[in-house]
Order: sequence, then structure tokens, then C-alpha cells
Amino acid sequence: MAKRKSLMSDPCPVARSIDVVGDRWALLIIRDAFDGMRRFGEFQKSLGVAKNILSARLRDLVDAGILDVAPASDGSAYQEYILTAKGKELFTVVLGLRQWGEGHLFKKGESIAPMVDRDSGKPIPKITLHTCEGKLLKPENAFVKRKTRA
Amino acid sequence: MAKRKSLMSDPCPVARSIDVVGDRWALLIIRDAFDGMRRFGEFQKSLGVAKNILSARLRDLVDAGILDVAPASDGSAYQEYILTAKGKELFTVVLGLRQWGEGHLFKKGESIAPMVDRDSGKPIPKITLHTCEGKLLKPENAFVKRKTRA
Repeated sequence: MAKRKSLMSDPCPVARSIDVVGDRWALLIIRDAFDGMRRFGEFQKSLGVAKNILSARLRDLVDAGILDVAPASDGSAYQEYILTAKGKELFTVVLGLRQWGEGHLFKKGESIAPMVDRDSGKPIPKITLHTCEGKLLKPENAFVKRKTRA
Repeated sequence: MAKRKSLMSDPCPVARSIDVVGDRWALLIIRDAFDGMRRFGEFQKSLGVAKNILSARLRDLVDAGILDVAPASDGSAYQEYILTAKGKELFTVVLGLRQWGEGHLFKKGESIAPMVDRDSGKPIPKITLHTCEGKLLKPENAFVKRKTRA
């Protein structure tokens, strides 16, 4: 990651986000963190990734303010990695990836473990995008209003 | 990309999506496609990426059914890359990345070109997540109901 050109001064907010989380391992770690994983060994077992790569990605996510490091909740010597408030706001992206995958990357009849609401046990509905008037938003109808075009 | 272990048989839909679009260049190309770019030269100019990498990523996105190749709309010999219906459904992910970047990766006072609705000219509101009862969904309240836990 270190040798890539940084996009953090790019005027596009999508590019800046991609600079931080547009990476296979970073996204999988964030997914696992939402899934309740906290320890190095848990991420390692889940992802089967080399320890040096996992260490580097966890450090990057801590540096980016997405994960916090905390002493283990059970009083042991382990460290835990916990999503910060900033990290938790990536839930929309992770859920968006989940729903796109559910819709397009499974064969007919292939089972998918659903994401459900803890209170009701019911599946989380598909994310819908709206205009500020509450109309459904189609991608064709959204554009970035740049100064040079204004 | 070819040497990485495929996640396409992973039971997790997030992992499958990451396998297809969890890559810096893929995400930036998809962003540019939503921004109206269609030609190799446009993507190349926008991204400053090596031509061989851009070729490979565009081919992957075509193979994945995210982009379609079409003859140029102006009748010239150029090819155009156009988001398919499946590709357009990634708008939620791109908008989620945009809004996370807007909220967390800009300095106070730093200007951000807004994404607006073509009809009203008003900014697109922040994506909100809901339960099927219409309550606001917090990440803590969503979990994947796996068979082994049921």
C-alpha cells in the first residue's frame, strides 16, 4: 500500500474513501469487525491472510481512525480492534456490497445467510436511495455539480 | 488480480462482491463510469493509470457483467464502456463511499463538489438504513443469521 499514489488530496470524496478502504483486505477486515470479530487471531482465522499483511492492514485501519485498539474485554493480555464511530459509518458501504452480492453473485437456489434485525428477526430490507423530496433516486439522475461546470 | 484466491464460492455475499469490486482501480473506474465516462482515453486521463492495468481492469469489469462494450455513440471507431443494469446497482456502494468521504476525509472548510439531483438541483441526502418496520437501523442491531447459530 505504501508505494501507491495517495488520493487523499483528490477533490473527489469517493477517491479519498477508496484510498482508505478500497482494498480487498481492508474491506474484509471491516466486514469481520461488523460481524463481531475483535482479535488478531479471529481475523487471521477468518481471512487466511498472511500475518504480516494482516498486521499492516490493521495498523492502516487504526491510523485511519476506523479501528481503535483496546485491551481485551476479558482482562487477558490480548489487544482488541474495535470499530470507531467513523468506522461504524462504513456500514452503509458494507451493507451495499452485501446486497449487491446477494442480488447478482449467487446462483438460483443457492442459500444465503440473511442479515436480520436483532429486535424483530426480520431481514434487513434493500437500501433505497432518495432525493431530498423523497422521490426514488436513479443513478442517471444524480450528478456532481463541479464549479467548472456551474 | 489473477493470482489472488477467488472469493466467489465464499458463502458471504460481501466477500463475493469484494472479489469483484474490492479493488482500487475497479472502484475508481466504476465511479468514473457513473460520472459519464465511456472511453478508454477518458478513464486513462482521469485515473493516470498504466494502460495495461486499465485494460485488464476494464476487461475484468466486462467479464463480471458490470460494464458492457458498445460501438461509440458518435459513429467513430472507438469502443465505449457502459454500465450494465447490474453495474448501475453499485450506485449505492459508490454513493456510500462518497458520503463517508464527505463526512470524514475533508478538512473543516475544505470545499466539496456536491452530488445533486438533476431535477431539483438539490443535494442528494445522506443514505439512511432502515429495518423492515421502518425504524432507523444501527449496525449493532444487524447480524447475519447463520444456520450454525440458528
